[in-house]
Formats: sequence, structure tokens, C-alpha cells
Amino acid sequence: MYKEPASFKLDIESGVIEDSKRLVRRLSDMKGYFVDEEAWKELVEKENPVVYEVYAVEQEEREGDLNFATTILYPGKVGKEFFFTKGHFHAKPDRAEVYVALKGRGGMLLQTPEGEARWIPMEPGTIIYVPPYWAHRTVNTGREPFIFLAIYPADAGHDYGTIAKKGFSKIVIEEDGEVKVINNPRWKA
Amino acid sequence: MYKEPASFKLDIESGVIEDSKRLVRRLSDMKGYFVDEEAWKELVEKENPVVYEVYAVEQEEREGDLNFATTILYPGKVGKEFFFTKGHFHAKPDRAEVYVALKGRGGMLLQTPEGEARWIPMEPGTIIYVPPYWAHRTVNTGREPFIFLAIYPADAGHDYGTIAKKGFSKIVIEEDGEVKVINNPRWKA
Repeated sequence: MYKEPASFKLDIESGVIEDSKRLVRRLSDMKGYFVDEEAWKELVEKENPVVYEVYAVEQEEREGDLNFATTILYPGKVGKEFFFTKGHFHAKPDRAEVYVALKGRGGMLLQTPEGEARWIPMEPGTIIYVPPYWAHRTVNTGREPFIFLAIYPADAGHDYGTIAKKGFSKIVIEEDGEVKVINNPRWKA
Repeated sequence: MYKEPASFKLDIESGVIEDSKRLVRRLSDMKGYFVDEEAWKELVEKENPVVYEVYAVEQEEREGDLNFATTILYPGKVGKEFFFTKGHFHAKPDRAEVYVALKGRGGMLLQTPEGEARWIPMEPGTIIYVPPYWAHRTVNTGREPFIFLAIYPADAGHDYGTIAKKGFSKIVIEEDGEVKVINNPRWKA
């Protein structure tokens, strides 16, 4: 039998998709992700802020089907490092993804399995094509929530482990009031 | 080697994606699509308007990769029937698609291979999940351009022939100032 077509209401101002699955990541869920571990610990103990929320509409894992999700990535920093999403490769690494920036300011870090990194700034209307094999993480470099929509193959899956362990070879920080993309001091190739 | 990540600038007001491939469909390209053939002929001879434009970013045809495109569907009618896109099944019929309405008002006709149809209204913020196997056509029921973004598997392909020959079992018309979805008088199951 055929699956029934479905429509969803996306509130572009808030990023919320009605009747979707909500996931919340607090700073305590991101132990080991930020370079300044002291600053991380302090902020977790003080307020443990929500770093991002995801609203996802997902199908069974099947070739040729599609999932989509919005992310609301809140503004903030851990030490000098801007808030970011965990970032992942796809479990099927050759699956691509498309991102559409809706609100706020930020960017995407991308990285090959060998650690070659790219930084792409995003503002409302930016569409990013994430090619097969590139890990990807979004970063909020602004002062308001950074909201974007992602569309990905239903069988892409997520490999968070590699990034959780190794991180990205670049980090995105604020220094002297400027956004800077610098080498990750903890990176080991 | 890895494909390079890429970003594209979508102007949400106009629907144009910079550095994408533009395709234009005029009314003369849609012979046989509208029920009122006299009205079609007259309008083609008078001004042959652009019915829609597409701005597409496409990859090679490969499983797990993704394409995306905006469509600017202009307001207008042929007789009572609102302007629409040709509509298609996917050449790989089990490929899904995701539509995001950005501007204007309209809707989507969907249809199974057996001719079972659905109508889903669209306004800015509506996201439609087009499941595997459903043909789909968008319709502008408003007075301004209807603009939306579609994301689809790079290996989905297009089967326009079935719809070109048989059409949809429903048509969308204006009658007494109202939008009506009625049975297609020319439909043969």
C-alpha cells in the first residue's frame, strides 16, 4: 500500500514544525565537545542551558525516502567557542544532505574522514549542499537563535561517535569581537 | 576524491537561486495539459505567458545524493483552470520528495499510479512530504507568484509521459470566485 502524503506547518519565526518529534540538547549532553572544559563545567553547573532543539519528521530507514528537520541553535559560548551542534558523519557515509538557513546567523563546519575542514557562513536564504562523505556541524555566531531546515535521505543514519571522539580540526571562536575559524588545539590527525 | 561542499544564495522574495540552472516553461510548452483547449490556444496566440520557471542545482544521478530546485509558478488561468506545473512521477517511482512553500498561495495535487488523488493546500511555511510512488503537480491558486523549494533524490529522475497522456483525475478551478477541486472531465482510469 501507498504511504499517505502529509503536510506539516513550519513556523519560520520559531523554527517549530507542528506534529514532529522534538529533541533537546542541553550543555550537559555535550561533555567533551568544547575545548575549554573548565568553562563548560561552570556553565553546566550554573544554568545548563539548552544548546539546541530539533524538530524532525522521519520515515522508516529505506533507500530513496527522505527525512527533514529544523534545528534551533541558541546563541551562546563556552569560553570563546560559539555554541554548536554535535555534528556527525552519516552512518551510510555516501549520503548527501541539504541545509536551508531560515533565521539568524551562523555557519557550517564540514570535514572529510581525513580531517580536511571547510567553513561556510550561513544567513537566511543560504542553501548548503553537503556532499557525500563530509561530516557537518552548525555553529551559531550571532546573538539570536540560528534556525535552519535540513533534508536528508531516510537511510543516511548518524555516526556521532567519530566526531565525539576526535572533534573537528577547526573551531569557531569569538576574539576581539570577531568571528574567527582557527585550528583546534586538541586536534590529532 | 570528495566533492566540494557548496553554498547557494536563495532570494526568498524572487525564488531565484544564484548559480543554478534555469528552466522556463511557457504555455506553448504545455499543449494538451489544460481541459479548455480553445482557451489554451487563444492565450498561446495572444501572449504565450511564462507559466513557471525552475532554478535547479543537480548532481550526477547517484543513489543517496540530493538535488534541489525552486519553482516560481505564475498566477493565471486557462479557462477556469489555474496555472500548474506539468507534474510527474519519478522515473524511479519509489523516490520521495520534500516541498517547502516560501511565498504566495497554492497547493499540490498528488496521485497514485491507479489515479487516486489528493489535494493539499500550501502557504508559506507548509512542508509537504511526497511519499514514494505519488505523482505530484503544484497549482497556483493565488494572485501573486507561488514560490516553493523542492528537495529530491539525485537518482529520482522524471516520468512526465504518464501525466502528459492521462493528466490527473482531479483539476483545480476557479468558480464563483472560489477555488474548487473537481473531477477531471477528461479523466479515463
